[in-house]
Amino acid sequence: MSFVSHGPVVPTSDALGVLRPLPADAVLLDADGLLGGWQQRNTESTLPHCVDQLRVHGNLTNLRRLTGDADEEFAGFWFADTDVHKTLEAAFWSGSAGAFADEVAALLEKAQDPDGYLDTYYQDPANRDRQWAELHFSHEMYTAGHLIQAAVAAARSAPDSTPAQQVVSVARRFADLLVQRYGQSGETDGHPEVETALVELYRVTGHRPYLDLAARFVENRGHGVLGEGRFGPRYFQDHEPLRDTAEVTGHVVRQVYLLAGAVDVAVETGDRPLLETAVRLWDSALESRTYLTGGQGSRHRDEAYGDPYELPPDRAYAETCAAIGNFQLAWRLLLATGEARFADEMERVLYNGIAGSTAADGTAFFYSNPLQLRTGHDGSHEDAPSQRLTWYSCACCPPNLARLMASLHAYLATGGPDGLQLHLYSTGTVSIGGRGVRVETSYPWDEEVTVTVTGSPATPWTLSLRVPAWCDDVRLTVNGTPAPARGQITGGYLRLHRTWHTGDRVSLTFAMPARLVTAHPRVDAVRGTAALARGPLVYCLEHADLPALVLEDLELAPDPAVAVAHHSAGLAPVTLRVPVRVRPAGGEPLYRDLPRTTEPRPSAAVVTAIPYFLWANRAPGPMRVWIPLATQGA
Amino acid sequence: MSFVSHGPVVPTSDALGVLRPLPADAVLLDADGLLGGWQQRNTESTLPHCVDQLRVHGNLTNLRRLTGDADEEFAGFWFADTDVHKTLEAAFWSGSAGAFADEVAALLEKAQDPDGYLDTYYQDPANRDRQWAELHFSHEMYTAGHLIQAAVAAARSAPDSTPAQQVVSVARRFADLLVQRYGQSGETDGHPEVETALVELYRVTGHRPYLDLAARFVENRGHGVLGEGRFGPRYFQDHEPLRDTAEVTGHVVRQVYLLAGAVDVAVETGDRPLLETAVRLWDSALESRTYLTGGQGSRHRDEAYGDPYELPPDRAYAETCAAIGNFQLAWRLLLATGEARFADEMERVLYNGIAGSTAADGTAFFYSNPLQLRTGHDGSHEDAPSQRLTWYSCACCPPNLARLMASLHAYLATGGPDGLQLHLYSTGTVSIGGRGVRVETSYPWDEEVTVTVTGSPATPWTLSLRVPAWCDDVRLTVNGTPAPARGQITGGYLRLHRTWHTGDRVSLTFAMPARLVTAHPRVDAVRGTAALARGPLVYCLEHADLPALVLEDLELAPDPAVAVAHHSAGLAPVTLRVPVRVRPAGGEPLYRDLPRTTEPRPSAAVVTAIPYFLWANRAPGPMRVWIPLATQGA
Repeated sequence: MSFVSHGPVVPTSDALGVLRPLPADAVLLDADGLLGGWQQRNTESTLPHCVDQLRVHGNLTNLRRLTGDADEEFAGFWFADTDVHKTLEAAFWSGSAGAFADEVAALLEKAQDPDGYLDTYYQDPANRDRQWAELHFSHEMYTAGHLIQAAVAAARSAPDSTPAQQVVSVARRFADLLVQRYGQSGETDGHPEVETALVELYRVTGHRPYLDLAARFVENRGHGVLGEGRFGPRYFQDHEPLRDTAEVTGHVVRQVYLLAGAVDVAVETGDRPLLETAVRLWDSALESRTYLTGGQGSRHRDEAYGDPYELPPDRAYAETCAAIGNFQLAWRLLLATGEARFADEMERVLYNGIAGSTAADGTAFFYSNPLQLRTGHDGSHEDAPSQRLTWYSCACCPPNLARLMASLHAYLATGGPDGLQLHLYSTGTVSIGGRGVRVETSYPWDEEVTVTVTGSPATPWTLSLRVPAWCDDVRLTVNGTPAPARGQITGGYLRLHRTWHTGDRVSLTFAMPARLVTAHPRVDAVRGTAALARGPLVYCLEHADLPALVLEDLELAPDPAVAVAHHSAGLAPVTLRVPVRVRPAGGEPLYRDLPRTTEPRPSAAVVTAIPYFLWANRAPGPMRVWIPLATQGA
Repeated sequence: MSFVSHGPVVPTSDALGVLRPLPADAVLLDADGLLGGWQQRNTESTLPHCVDQLRVHGNLTNLRRLTGDADEEFAGFWFADTDVHKTLEAAFWSGSAGAFADEVAALLEKAQDPDGYLDTYYQDPANRDRQWAELHFSHEMYTAGHLIQAAVAAARSAPDSTPAQQVVSVARRFADLLVQRYGQSGETDGHPEVETALVELYRVTGHRPYLDLAARFVENRGHGVLGEGRFGPRYFQDHEPLRDTAEVTGHVVRQVYLLAGAVDVAVETGDRPLLETAVRLWDSALESRTYLTGGQGSRHRDEAYGDPYELPPDRAYAETCAAIGNFQLAWRLLLATGEARFADEMERVLYNGIAGSTAADGTAFFYSNPLQLRTGHDGSHEDAPSQRLTWYSCACCPPNLARLMASLHAYLATGGPDGLQLHLYSTGTVSIGGRGVRVETSYPWDEEVTVTVTGSPATPWTLSLRVPAWCDDVRLTVNGTPAPARGQITGGYLRLHRTWHTGDRVSLTFAMPARLVTAHPRVDAVRGTAALARGPLVYCLEHADLPALVLEDLELAPDPAVAVAHHSAGLAPVTLRVPVRVRPAGGEPLYRDLPRTTEPRPSAAVVTAIPYFLWANRAPGPMRVWIPLATQGA
């Protein structure tokens, strides 16, 4: 069986890889499931909001300046075009490209230089002489990459439409210019992105020079070709060749985009050592440089990983784009290896680090995603605001969310001649070539997932269902009959091999008690604390639920019996009820000698914890994920 | 009795103030005391090193470009002149101004514009049209302020010398230009500094318009006159008028320099509410935004205070210049109020935050002063290096250290008709107008301080000796006879009132057991840890003393009996011997559920702690001040 695929990341049939993506239309999410709801919100709110903001902030006008249809000053950062490209990509994935795509595709075609160059900042007469002259900084290929990814989305989702054909032509002309200019070069761009885009364009077109150029860019990096920059060569992973690198470093988005490109190159060229390099660096990030939410990036100053185990919750940078990049990298590694841990990480970062970045109404966003906000926080600057903002001066994150959410259904399942694999659970249907299942669940609120066969060939095949790493109690029934689950789990998946019939029904129960999670003792920033979790969701305490208390003065009760509460209305369908003690700490000196001769007498209370991803949807106020454990001697 | 004073900060006789500074030549430090040793090192190593670096990095050439004696490109940051001015100030305070002062004074005179303007960056023909046009950013008045402070040092230390007269003339011309241009203006500079400089120039010259302009600049700030800048108005304390402000905010050096200027204005104009404002902001910093070392500034990104209780030891910015500024601010508040807590803070920040910034040989420096450096730290960038560097691209700190150390003796004691007050202890002499004492001590290594009267009038006076806040066991003998100390301590000073005779001998013993210090429970970053201290010194563990162990895997033994070890040779005269447990933590996952079913079995060891200020003088490697307390259940 061979699928024609239409989502992001479609390795060719010759590529390395254990799992194969499904066509985009093989998976349909119901809007009443959490993931389908997010996707619907994206289509109805986030995407139109992004289009509006592009108009408000001049990104489209930047194109019109070139076509002679506007004479305003250039607006925004020098890479402002990327916000247009990412929104366009989102529009294509969403299937609602419409007038916006018509408008932008025509503008892009008109604004492109005869040689294929397209970057409105560097096409400005004042900046033309700087074209290609400051690659460490210019983002020209990063911009080209996002244009190409929009074209890939166009080609896969609406290949016969006029705007799609326009965007693909424009992107190919720019890509051809890159091939012509850099096909024999030792240079590369300061911000990776074009690597994965070129491989995807190769997958769409079959034009090998795109793949070769992507491979070249991966190899060029790491030889000090980008200079010192503001933060040194590690910032853009230019300190040593990727293949020689032992651990992630520098600017997180650059690192994960580079690794995504490296995986794409590796699978298409059969380069197993390069794939192993990507896995090694992934492991290094997960071992000591990843937040409990799946976010990465501990430093605001250079948006960088930071040192091993440096994971401050309050100053977590955990940029939304880094989380999205990691989700997309994990998907590539999942396809390449078939290993469940990559799907586990997709789930963690999706439900926490990524989901938390978007407001409940879909029109405001966090750029950085801290795990703590203090009483007295100065949230007046967009670097660390108290609430999600509708847009940012560097607006990379919102349209990145839009393009991810528009294509989210494509990341749920894989399949091939031997069966179907379900990686993420939300209500919807998966069907391909006469084989299909219906998934019904309130996951992650509820423990139950029901999978009903809606079609099957007459031959046996394997239905693989991921058992999340957080779950140590999974129960299974098949057609109502309890079956032993444990013995059928291999490599993190429950694998049910049989001749399936329409109507066959598999029920899974992933037990979801409230859990207390602790960090490695080297994570100094959260020593003596625990975080609350249930299923894939990290929970937090938020001021809105305990307005009479100072959040910093709470600690968990000894051996706290945390209760799970279900709600039919309100912000969160499931909250946790947490026994705590309150130790009034006002007035104490900042430092004092041990032993303390007196301890404040704590009072007891029970407070509500909400899912982390839902914080900051009521009044702005303090929040924390990591809660002090009960102190001794009280 | 009236003193002619010659150090930094000399309020006029009409100024508000409880204590009066002594003439600079009233205090002489012996080089075998710790403070005198630092001062000698400064004269012999740091100051010549700074002069060399100014030559290497083009700061002097920037002046010669203007005088037609060089045609190199402008070098360094746009405020590169300030490094020249600060080094010149240091040279004057050190009494060894010499050829460097001759050279620079002549250059300054020659480079100054006819109208008094002097700023080599903005005098460049390419930048002239930007003069005074970007005050939020240009540092023009900040630069003027440092020029003026060099002139103040010149006027007080070598008033009759040619270079001093040149520098004073140049500075007055620039100050007069400021008065002419901004005397009726609502504007101010993005970086405070000129305020305190103008008041000091007023003190030297008696020219009231300088004081009035300083007062105006203090009031102009806080009305949004500087715009948004990169980090918003709070960054430069322009979000609300100083008098209305409840707590420190924004860029730390800007904040403390502003407060120093405000105190200077307040005492000279009799403005008690403004003085109270400065005390209130000082309190807010000490209450929740100061490191155990006295350092301030928790954020690298904007060199800012951060939120209340946000005090990460690893990412402590704790800029050297901020510590110096706080020392100078504390001195002003001590003079104004006579309250010992300001002298306590001077001691803390001097022996820890400031002292730690300079290498043992006096020619390498930290810009930021973290309280922890991790195993695996990437120290390749000057923002957070593993070792002190000989210079920085923004080299504000080294010459700031040089000017502080050159004038250090002026901060030790105060006096007036009613007596002498000793605030900091180091071997040396204090003598003024026939009254004097000889101080002999190995403080802070040793507990004993002996004060011998070397001269006295025939009338009674009070010898006041600060009892450090860290000390809860002070013993006193007078002429060999034990005397009750406690009852004679008021306001943090042991006050001995009598008719003194030459040869009278006061001995103080400040008991210096090793102490364990704990932080306020809201300081999340050091929860469950303690720091080691002895006397005024904070101690740390450093890799060089435990090369076979992973520093992150140590914790203090339960109720550790820390021993004090005295050494006749080696890096530190006094080290601490610390019982610890080692918990090998390699291989554990980054996060896992509680309860832990198995705990690694710790092994016991005794390790050496050294004074924090001496870290990073051997091999580069991990260091930490805050050490985990013994965990439960092991």
